[in-house]
Amino acid sequence: MFSGHNIIGYSTSAKAGKKLQAFSTIRQGYLPEEFTIATEEDIEAATAKAAAAFEVYKKTTYEERARFLEAIADEILAIGDALIQRAMLESGLPEARLVGERGRTMGQLKLFAEVLREGSWVEAVIDTALPDRKPLPRVDLRKMLVPIGPVVVFAASNFPFAFSTAGGDTASALASGCPVIVKAHTSHLGTNELVATAIIKAAQKCGMPDGVFSSLVGEGSTLGQGLAKHPVIKAVGFTGSFRAGMALFKTATERPVPIPVYAEMSSINPVLVLPRKLEEDIDKAASMLAGSITLGVGQFCTNPGLLFIIDSPHTQQLIDKLTGLLKATPESTMLNEVICKSYHEGTKNLLKEKGVTTVLEPQDFSEAYKGGASLMQVAAQDFMSNTELQNEVFGPSSLIIRCQNKEEMAAAVRSLHGQLTGTILGTVEDATEFSDCIDALTEKVGRLIYNGVPTGVEVSYAMVHGGPFPATSDARTTSVGADAIKRFVRPVCYQDCPESFLPESLKNANPLGIMRKVNGQMTKEPIS
Amino acid sequence: MFSGHNIIGYSTSAKAGKKLQAFSTIRQGYLPEEFTIATEEDIEAATAKAAAAFEVYKKTTYEERARFLEAIADEILAIGDALIQRAMLESGLPEARLVGERGRTMGQLKLFAEVLREGSWVEAVIDTALPDRKPLPRVDLRKMLVPIGPVVVFAASNFPFAFSTAGGDTASALASGCPVIVKAHTSHLGTNELVATAIIKAAQKCGMPDGVFSSLVGEGSTLGQGLAKHPVIKAVGFTGSFRAGMALFKTATERPVPIPVYAEMSSINPVLVLPRKLEEDIDKAASMLAGSITLGVGQFCTNPGLLFIIDSPHTQQLIDKLTGLLKATPESTMLNEVICKSYHEGTKNLLKEKGVTTVLEPQDFSEAYKGGASLMQVAAQDFMSNTELQNEVFGPSSLIIRCQNKEEMAAAVRSLHGQLTGTILGTVEDATEFSDCIDALTEKVGRLIYNGVPTGVEVSYAMVHGGPFPATSDARTTSVGADAIKRFVRPVCYQDCPESFLPESLKNANPLGIMRKVNGQMTKEPIS
Repeated sequence: MFSGHNIIGYSTSAKAGKKLQAFSTIRQGYLPEEFTIATEEDIEAATAKAAAAFEVYKKTTYEERARFLEAIADEILAIGDALIQRAMLESGLPEARLVGERGRTMGQLKLFAEVLREGSWVEAVIDTALPDRKPLPRVDLRKMLVPIGPVVVFAASNFPFAFSTAGGDTASALASGCPVIVKAHTSHLGTNELVATAIIKAAQKCGMPDGVFSSLVGEGSTLGQGLAKHPVIKAVGFTGSFRAGMALFKTATERPVPIPVYAEMSSINPVLVLPRKLEEDIDKAASMLAGSITLGVGQFCTNPGLLFIIDSPHTQQLIDKLTGLLKATPESTMLNEVICKSYHEGTKNLLKEKGVTTVLEPQDFSEAYKGGASLMQVAAQDFMSNTELQNEVFGPSSLIIRCQNKEEMAAAVRSLHGQLTGTILGTVEDATEFSDCIDALTEKVGRLIYNGVPTGVEVSYAMVHGGPFPATSDARTTSVGADAIKRFVRPVCYQDCPESFLPESLKNANPLGIMRKVNGQMTKEPIS
Repeated sequence: MFSGHNIIGYSTSAKAGKKLQAFSTIRQGYLPEEFTIATEEDIEAATAKAAAAFEVYKKTTYEERARFLEAIADEILAIGDALIQRAMLESGLPEARLVGERGRTMGQLKLFAEVLREGSWVEAVIDTALPDRKPLPRVDLRKMLVPIGPVVVFAASNFPFAFSTAGGDTASALASGCPVIVKAHTSHLGTNELVATAIIKAAQKCGMPDGVFSSLVGEGSTLGQGLAKHPVIKAVGFTGSFRAGMALFKTATERPVPIPVYAEMSSINPVLVLPRKLEEDIDKAASMLAGSITLGVGQFCTNPGLLFIIDSPHTQQLIDKLTGLLKATPESTMLNEVICKSYHEGTKNLLKEKGVTTVLEPQDFSEAYKGGASLMQVAAQDFMSNTELQNEVFGPSSLIIRCQNKEEMAAAVRSLHGQLTGTILGTVEDATEFSDCIDALTEKVGRLIYNGVPTGVEVSYAMVHGGPFPATSDARTTSVGADAIKRFVRPVCYQDCPESFLPESLKNANPLGIMRKVNGQMTKEPIS
C-alpha cells in the first residue's frame, strides 16, 4: 500500500539510506512502514521541476485550475476508508472527526474552485487612457494579481488532512497559480503518501505540468531549511510551533532574496467572561467553555487558553461548574509523543510560576499518550508581570485570570501578545460597559467572537485565521478562507499593453465577466 | 521663517545641542538655517503621542480622514512660493518641476480622500449566518481591513514633496487610520519643516488627535534605527538606497515583534528595444530614450538604466542618435553631494568591469555638483556573468546590453534582479516573436510598459510602483497609487457581533453604500 518514496512531480525517489517511521500513540509504538527521507538531490529535482512547471501552470485558466482542485477533492474521497484508517493510526484522532475533516478539506478545495470561477480575487483595476488630459495625457494602466512562483508548504500534525498535504495552504497556493512542494509531517507519513498520490493522479488527469506538486519526507532542520533557503522557492506556508515557525522566518528573511513566510504559530485565545452574561446563565457559559477547552483533546490553534473573569460572587460558581465538567470529560489519546510530553510539561511548568494555583490538577505524562483537562488560575497583576504565562500550552488546559475590576481587565488584555482569536461572553450591556477591554482585545486578534467559542474555524469568504505576532508571522493575511489565496500573489501593472497581449482578466470585453475597478468604480461592464 | 525644532504632535522640541544644516548644490555650500536633531526623549515623546493618537484616530470616519487629507493639500498650497523657493535651494530642482511635484503631492492626498469616500478599500466581506445548516449551523462572519498602528515614514531626497513629509507614504498611512512619524530627509530640512507645519495646521483645524503626525530630524543610523526598533511602531515606509533600506529591513525583522517594512530601494529598469520597432522609427526610439534617461538629471527610481538591443544594422544607428541627443542635453545640478559623488563614482566603476566600453564618456565629479549623461555598452554574455553590472547608478546613465539573438536576450533578462519597471519598445509582431523575453521580463517587474518610457509614474488606481526584490522589500505592494493604503492595514473578522457594535462598513444596512462581498458575491445591497 505504501511505497515510502518521495513524490517528485510525476516521478518518485528513494535514494537515501535513512528512513522514517510514523509513531502511533494508539499503538504506542512506531508503525512498520518506512519512508525514505529526501536527499539534497531530491530537493534539487523537486525545485527544478517546480520552476519549470510554474512557467506552464501560471498560464492555465482559472477554470482549468478550478477543475484541478475539484479533481484533487474527488481523488482524496476515492482513497476511501483506507485513508481514514491510516490517519486514525497516525494521529490518534477518532474516525468521526477524520471523516469530518476530510469533508472540510474537500470543501476547502472546492471553495477555491469557486473563488477562481468568480474571479474578483485577482483585483483587476483599470484606468483607461486620457489622451486629451492637460498638461499631460494619461496612459492606459491595468493591474491584477499574478502568482509569485513555487511555494513550500509545511504540513501540520493536528489536522492531518485540512492543514496538511492537500490542506488550505496547498489549495490556496495551487489556486493562485503556484506549484507546491509539501514537506510531509513526520507524524503522518502514510497519510501524506496517500494524499500526495491523490494529488498527482488529479494533476495527471487534468493535464497539469510535471512538478506542479511534489511531496518530500525529512526533518524540519534539514529538509525544511533546505527548501526555505532554495532560490526557486518564493514563499513559505507553515502551521506549527513558535520555535519552528521562527526558524523558518529567520531563514527566509536572511536569504540573499528574502521571501514571505506565512507561519501560523502560537495563540492562547483569550476569552472575556463578562458579569451580566455570567449571571444570566452560568451553566451555559461553563458548558461552552468546557466543550471548547477539551474539543479534540485541546489540540487546536484556537483552543481557549486564557479566561479573564471579574471577581464576583458568580466567579467561584463558574469555576466550580467548569471544573466539574472538565473532570467529567474522559482523557483521550493525543496526536504524537512530542505534543503529549510538551502538554504535560507545559502544565506542570505553569504551576511553578508566581501566583499560579491549581484548580484542576494537571496529570503526569504516561506512555498511554493521553491528555486530560487541567485548569489553573492567577491574579491579573501576576499575569501582567510575567510573560511566561503567555506561552502556549498545546492541549486541554486553560488559565483563569482573575481581575478585580474592568480597568484591571483592560490592562491585562493590553499586556497580551498577538492572538488568532479573542472571545467575548457578554450581553449587549456588558459589551457597552467593557468597551475598553473589547477595544484592547480587537487590537490583539484576527477574529473577535461574540458569545461563541474560538474553536471551529469556518472555511468561508469572511474568515480570518491569522492575527498579530506571534499568532502569525504576518498579520496581513489569513490561512483559512477565500483570502488565503492572496498570500501567494503580487500585483503587476500593464501600461499601454496591446489588447491581444493583455491577460483575460484585463481585456476590454471582460470575457470572464468578473468584478473590476474601472476608473475608480467597481463594475462588471466591458470597456467600450 | 524656520524654528529648526522637531515637531512632536502639537508641541515642538529642540533639546539637543547637535544641529544639522541642509546642503545646497546650487549655492555649493550649507544653508545657514539650523535644525536640531531629535533626542531619545523626543523619540519617546513622539511615539507615546502616536500610540495615544491611534486610539482616537483609528475611530475617525472615512469622511473625517478624507477632509483631513484635503486640508493638508490646502495648507501645503497656502505656504505659497516660499515652499517652492526653499525646495529649489535644498534640492537643486528647477521651479517648474517643483510646482508640478507640489500639484502631484496634493493630487495624491486628494486621491486617498476619494479612496476613503468610495470605501471598497476596506474589503468588507460578509458571510451571513446559516442557522439551519447541517451538520452544523454557520455563524455570522464579517471581516474588513483595520489600521495596524503608528507608522514611520522615511522621506526620500529625490522628490522633496511627493515622496517626502506629506508624500505618498504619509498620505496612504494617514488615510488607512495610522498616525505617522516622519524622519525628515537631511537634504531638505527646511522644506520638511514647512510641510510638517502645514500638516499640523490641517490636523488642528480638523480636530485630529495630538500625535497623529510628528516629524523628527536626525541621521538614519540613530534616529531612523531608533524609530524602526520602537515597540509602538507597527510598520515602516521607506524610499532610498539599497543599503539603507536593507538596514531597516534587518532591524524590523529582528525585533522581538517583527514589523513589515515597505522599502523601495534599487531598480535599473530594463528596456527591450525590439528590431521592427527600431526599423519603424529610429529617431523616435532615440528621442524617447534620451528624454527618459536625462529627465530630472536621471534622479528617478524608474530611470531606464539598461537597454537590451539585438545586434542588427540598425543598432549602431540607434546608438549614434541616442549618443547625439544625450550629448546635446545640458548637464544639470544634482540633488545633493552624496548622490552627485555616487553618480560619478558609479559610472567610472562600471567602466572597470569586464567587457564594458564607453559610448558617451562619464565625467568627473566637480564641485559644481552637476551631472551629465553617460552611455556604456557590454555584450549580453558579459552582462549575465557579472552581477556588479546590476548595481543601480543613480543619475543620467544607461548601459546598453548587446544581444546576438532573441534567445540570448531572453537569457539575459532571466538573469536580472527584481525591478520596478520593464519596458518594451516593439511592434505587435515584435512582441509576438519576443514573447519569451517579455514573459521573463514580466516575472521581474511590478510594471510592464509598452512603447513608452518608465519615468513618469501616474498616481491612479491601477498603478503599481513596486516589484520583486531588490526593487522593493515587499513585492506584494505598491508605494504609489490607491492601493498603497493596503500596506498599513490588517484584516479583522467579527463573529456573531451584535449589529450595534459592528463598524459602519459591516452593518446590515450598508450605511456607507460601499461595495462588499456578501456570501461570495460583490454587491452594494443592504442585508435584509
